[in-house]
Amino acid sequence: MKALERRLSGRREASLEELEEVQSELATLSLRELTSLLGRTSASRGAKILRLLPPERSAALFDALTAAHQADLIRALGDDKVVNYFGAIGAEDRVALLDHLPVEIAERLVRQLDEDDQRVTSVVLGYRKGTVGRRMSPKVPNVTPEMTVREVVGLLHDHVDELETIYTIPVVDADRSVCGVLRLRSLFRAADDDRVADLMEDASVFHAGDDLEDSARWLLSSGRLAVPVVDDDNRLIGIFTYDEAHDVAEGANSEDSARMGASEALRTPYLSTPVLRLVRSRIVWLLVLALSAILTVQVLDIFQATLEQVVVLSLFIPLLTGTGGNTGNQAATTVTRALALNDVRKSDILSVLWRELRVGMLLGTVLGSLGFLLATAFFGLGIGTVIGATLLIICTISATVGGMMPIIAKAVGADPAVFSNPFISTFCDATGLVVYFLIAKSVLGI
Amino acid sequence: MKALERRLSGRREASLEELEEVQSELATLSLRELTSLLGRTSASRGAKILRLLPPERSAALFDALTAAHQADLIRALGDDKVVNYFGAIGAEDRVALLDHLPVEIAERLVRQLDEDDQRVTSVVLGYRKGTVGRRMSPKVPNVTPEMTVREVVGLLHDHVDELETIYTIPVVDADRSVCGVLRLRSLFRAADDDRVADLMEDASVFHAGDDLEDSARWLLSSGRLAVPVVDDDNRLIGIFTYDEAHDVAEGANSEDSARMGASEALRTPYLSTPVLRLVRSRIVWLLVLALSAILTVQVLDIFQATLEQVVVLSLFIPLLTGTGGNTGNQAATTVTRALALNDVRKSDILSVLWRELRVGMLLGTVLGSLGFLLATAFFGLGIGTVIGATLLIICTISATVGGMMPIIAKAVGADPAVFSNPFISTFCDATGLVVYFLIAKSVLGI
Repeated sequence: MKALERRLSGRREASLEELEEVQSELATLSLRELTSLLGRTSASRGAKILRLLPPERSAALFDALTAAHQADLIRALGDDKVVNYFGAIGAEDRVALLDHLPVEIAERLVRQLDEDDQRVTSVVLGYRKGTVGRRMSPKVPNVTPEMTVREVVGLLHDHVDELETIYTIPVVDADRSVCGVLRLRSLFRAADDDRVADLMEDASVFHAGDDLEDSARWLLSSGRLAVPVVDDDNRLIGIFTYDEAHDVAEGANSEDSARMGASEALRTPYLSTPVLRLVRSRIVWLLVLALSAILTVQVLDIFQATLEQVVVLSLFIPLLTGTGGNTGNQAATTVTRALALNDVRKSDILSVLWRELRVGMLLGTVLGSLGFLLATAFFGLGIGTVIGATLLIICTISATVGGMMPIIAKAVGADPAVFSNPFISTFCDATGLVVYFLIAKSVLGI
Repeated sequence: MKALERRLSGRREASLEELEEVQSELATLSLRELTSLLGRTSASRGAKILRLLPPERSAALFDALTAAHQADLIRALGDDKVVNYFGAIGAEDRVALLDHLPVEIAERLVRQLDEDDQRVTSVVLGYRKGTVGRRMSPKVPNVTPEMTVREVVGLLHDHVDELETIYTIPVVDADRSVCGVLRLRSLFRAADDDRVADLMEDASVFHAGDDLEDSARWLLSSGRLAVPVVDDDNRLIGIFTYDEAHDVAEGANSEDSARMGASEALRTPYLSTPVLRLVRSRIVWLLVLALSAILTVQVLDIFQATLEQVVVLSLFIPLLTGTGGNTGNQAATTVTRALALNDVRKSDILSVLWRELRVGMLLGTVLGSLGFLLATAFFGLGIGTVIGATLLIICTISATVGGMMPIIAKAVGADPAVFSNPFISTFCDATGLVVYFLIAKSVLGI
């Protein structure tokens, strides 16, 4: 595969002979290897690979990619091949892909679908982004409690190819309200004449307007394979499957991870993302953070007289601001993750406050004592006292603020991961410096 | 549920009457609500709740918790109830739980299992932590290519209750080597007399010694429900299912998230984790980072004469070190996530170097120009030039180093998330300060 990567990365156009060689090499790769190959090359080269593969394989490969990556490839492919790929993927994946395409391309693609596919696609498109309705599969079988096992098996036999999942089967009343789910497993325990009513279990359902990320995480942690989706009148309109849920949760994890590192999530594999897009995903955050760091310049400006009198104070600035930032980030990271997993909710703000206050004081006591001893040894008792006391207070404030920020962010409807780490460092830096100089002035009497 | 939480958090012992009230309130909660309740209360109160529930419900609740949380509750429960819970969960979950218990408790629990359960548990326990073998389900049906659909359905009918999954069925030769997988879906398309050989698909298999996290992520991204596990002789020994894979990947995500925030992952829900354990998960990192930040004190000490001559230079220290740290963290976060998702491998180190070098220079050019303009406006051309040039160089170095660190960490067998963010800040701080003062000395002629 290495040799193939090198060959594909050559700059000049390949000869016909070379193309045939590449084609026969591609034929030896598994779907897993092809996916990985596409994730490590630019969209234009990825498009070349798709063209060189037999139609069925290239459609399967396309289906295995993330929506944003698919969108890049569609732009690189031009028109002719695209319609086939688009028709071959499920309605819920199609909608995810449309979300990443410019409107004019999206509209043209939808128009070229057959009537039935247009209908199911537009049902899903009818729900807001970020809701379960937007990522459900709208094709579900029509199973009622009165049916026998034999009838259900017959129904599945006839429709298995159209259905996204047959492992969890919603059971509906005459008015299509969900009255239970039938796990395929139960069919194997049962006799042919048993009725669905006696085999089905209580159903958990999602409403089409439910929050996508929360629902996805719950489905995954519950170990379910799929959950029926109902509309406002409780009528069955689709099913949300674990593999969609996994894609959603993974996307959210990537986003949280990126935000905690103060950048935007890439959505396409790192090596296939153009450098300018990497810059774009980072520059805004860097600018915002650098501008807010001007606050620290101003704080130091205020205390410039103190600094001029005792220049040695400036030696500890990075150590103190760094420790404050680290303590704040630890608390923020922990609470952000707990919020994402629903272990902590907005109403827990006071419990979190009280826990982080204690944690911060304990951490501050340990670090402060150590700082006191070391600074006293090298710079004398005065400086030692200032450093020790500053560390104690900085750790307490930073842990508390760091723990609260993600919850406050969530309460005002912002992304906890955004509002936490990047801003916490800046906040802790500025607060820490004020604390530092106030303590220094009073202890050293300047 | 709020009232129930308040009641459970009361300090005094409840009267018999109150206990009955709590019991009837607990009976109204769904498994989902109970899981959430247990995640928001201490282990000793969690143990009380488990005791108040009917045996079947409390076993189901116990099964739904993470292994580390289960271990806390087992310690709080004492002996009598524990054996029942332990017998009721799957072999792979049992092993995960044993990993979190002290050896003497673990051994006693295993001894109390029945013979068959002891056997399957010890098979799984025989594989190293962090391998697929350690989290596989050792119970698999014995399906051969010669069997008919009718025979397979009969076999599943008889054994459905013992099997962890029936949705993906490994097909084995006479010597138990895996020759394919049969998806349950295919059974529904087929006629009763069709042979397995004609329905089965090519199997991807895991080896028992394969890396657990990589395998789990691959299974999840492939959309498969389960993958057969084979031993060194390619014989079928178990099956690895998507729900185990999900638990593994979620655990790894929590760990990466914690490490990027410079702490250890909690493994138990935040609100049910004792404060001292929170302190323990953070203190080591804070100490290591604070001690390595002493490097910055030394760097500043070296340039103390420069600082004394131009005290205004100290005003920009937090801004410059902060920007360097942020740029480094952005690159490190992006690359760490790409490594986790297998989008980037160790052999890509030069591609990453080249990309981050260009990204860093572009970011540095933007920030440097802005810094030059602002600092010149407020502090004159000399300081402006120093700030602008320093930002350009710091961004370039930080992005490059930040992008390389996770890959180098992985290459030497360390956790990319550990070796990246926490250390990068310290490294960028120290390097940034050296760059800053060298530039200042040459530009300002001091």
